[in-house]
Amino acid sequence: MTRQSVLIASEKRIRLIIDQIIPLDDSAMNAANERWLSLCKPLYALGQLESLVIRLAGIQRRTRPVIGRKAIAIFAADNGVVAQGVTQVGQDVTATVTYNFVRGITTVNAMARVARADLFPIDIGINQPDKLPGVIDRRIRPGTADLSQGPAMSRAEAVEAILAGADMAVMLKNQGYEMLGTGEMGIGNTTTSSAVLAVLSGQPAASLTGRGAGLCDEKLRHKQAIIEKGIACNQPDPHDAIDILHKVGGLDLAGLAGLYIGAAACQLPIVIDGFIASVAALLAAGIAPGVKPYLLASHESAEPGGALALQMLGLPAWIKCGMRVGEGTGCCVAFSLFDHALAAYDNLATFEEAGVGAYLPLSTGV
Amino acid sequence: MTRQSVLIASEKRIRLIIDQIIPLDDSAMNAANERWLSLCKPLYALGQLESLVIRLAGIQRRTRPVIGRKAIAIFAADNGVVAQGVTQVGQDVTATVTYNFVRGITTVNAMARVARADLFPIDIGINQPDKLPGVIDRRIRPGTADLSQGPAMSRAEAVEAILAGADMAVMLKNQGYEMLGTGEMGIGNTTTSSAVLAVLSGQPAASLTGRGAGLCDEKLRHKQAIIEKGIACNQPDPHDAIDILHKVGGLDLAGLAGLYIGAAACQLPIVIDGFIASVAALLAAGIAPGVKPYLLASHESAEPGGALALQMLGLPAWIKCGMRVGEGTGCCVAFSLFDHALAAYDNLATFEEAGVGAYLPLSTGV
Repeated sequence: MTRQSVLIASEKRIRLIIDQIIPLDDSAMNAANERWLSLCKPLYALGQLESLVIRLAGIQRRTRPVIGRKAIAIFAADNGVVAQGVTQVGQDVTATVTYNFVRGITTVNAMARVARADLFPIDIGINQPDKLPGVIDRRIRPGTADLSQGPAMSRAEAVEAILAGADMAVMLKNQGYEMLGTGEMGIGNTTTSSAVLAVLSGQPAASLTGRGAGLCDEKLRHKQAIIEKGIACNQPDPHDAIDILHKVGGLDLAGLAGLYIGAAACQLPIVIDGFIASVAALLAAGIAPGVKPYLLASHESAEPGGALALQMLGLPAWIKCGMRVGEGTGCCVAFSLFDHALAAYDNLATFEEAGVGAYLPLSTGV
Repeated sequence: MTRQSVLIASEKRIRLIIDQIIPLDDSAMNAANERWLSLCKPLYALGQLESLVIRLAGIQRRTRPVIGRKAIAIFAADNGVVAQGVTQVGQDVTATVTYNFVRGITTVNAMARVARADLFPIDIGINQPDKLPGVIDRRIRPGTADLSQGPAMSRAEAVEAILAGADMAVMLKNQGYEMLGTGEMGIGNTTTSSAVLAVLSGQPAASLTGRGAGLCDEKLRHKQAIIEKGIACNQPDPHDAIDILHKVGGLDLAGLAGLYIGAAACQLPIVIDGFIASVAALLAAGIAPGVKPYLLASHESAEPGGALALQMLGLPAWIKCGMRVGEGTGCCVAFSLFDHALAAYDNLATFEEAGVGAYLPLSTGV
């Protein structure tokens, strides 16, 4: 096959996956809402925790959803744009921290133990010659090119990375996981994510680009200028998510976008981690709008673009405590919150069992 | 003793408890901050979760704080103002739900199991002749009087209720609990809490009074008018928290205020549940400003006054998901979040162990 026909075949495979995505089950959601109304507490008093359980019911197509085994897929990749000095540390840190996921010594390892979630680090484009033991090898290329000089990768590579992400969702479904989380590791990926968000939102990079791991004012201004330069030189089409992704995105963003699409196709709920994962969710929703009801927010990142990305997704964050680690840490705290929501839904007495007359709906309140 | 001398003796006892409150341990807090800076993640990237652990270190006076056994004290009381039709349901629901805490079938029971916290319901003023089995009996009086007609209770009764709350903190400390949470149950207590907050903030009741368990528009306006009437007829002194408490507050608010004061005196961290518990925390801080560093926020209630009360306390909420159950449910979700913070603090590798060069502080970022 020629290169062009491979590309067409891959994009066709994405289309086939997208075609499997179905809307949520309305009758399961209605039944879940009815159950909430029967439980002994003021009506709607668990707020978005009630909506969460209703959505889980719709996704799992049953009135009594479960949060069983949870997996976080962590996509690790390098970004050529770090050559422009947009980060505090070098590319070698991507490989080191990715291997530390296997060693069990990172922030997400600690939090995943609390949340009882399993971690799956994936090398989707780390820039070093060796492969990392214990890390799933789906390396598309050893890091992207410098987006300030031209496309970060080819369109075909972006499509391959999306498919690798979708494959992960299928693999995790087959292993019996019932809820997925997203994570990433990649020095330079707040730069790529800010670039993608600037294109998707039409807002200037300066308004949504943050300090990442901790740049000083001067370096922050430089990072913003590099992003503007990358957008000017690549001219990504704001209406074509894959065009944006391959020109100013990263392999981690592509893998995450694929994971969202694959999760929706497998009817698995999937939790958005922080800023980078939110931008990837916007890309996934751009490629496949049917993905959106399968997405669950976690926290609002301290990166300035975090709130904007969630707002564009129409998903309020449940938790806001200034976290900006990435790695999947936001999913871990969200998993624990979801455990509380489902515990209430499963274990509350009904008004009848509790010996309390039902509260009246607002419209007829007395 | 005359009634007046009993009152003076009780207020003296509160003063003795307040005198035991000491500032947090700066050296433990500095050491905890140093430890965070040594751990392999971008500096300050766990945001308020880092501040939380630092504060726990200061409260527990050790560099490595623990979140061991957790107890939620739930103060239950009735409010005479319900005679004015400010609620959807009658006073009997207070006793029924309080007994349901013992039966284990309420929202907070379900969530406390997830958070591994123990519940202690306390009858501090339920309006029914019988005592409830399994509920700690510290009933000061069977419900308050109608605050729209005069003081809800005498100053002496408010002081006794504060002391009962402080006693609970000591009892829980003696039982080996290392973190306390607050909860309440009392039909009409969003009315009393809104009245107290209106006096403390100087803002009109209409701006901060919500629907409670679910009033319609007309009933909401009536509730706001009753609160304004209660404030006008009682003229509480905005600079005397006990004056506000006995005139327009409730026995649950007084018990909670006492619990905060007692927790601080025992050097125990204490978590603020929702709207009512936030207002009680403001009262406690008014009575004993030294209480403030011992207070930890949980979530921002959907009641309109919730955000205002936390803002006046200077405590950002970690979680915002539209909850407005009370009972201690906010503490449960916060406990789980705190477990994540401490897991990261305890288990992350240092930069050296992780094989990563330390990130530089912002001011010298390169």
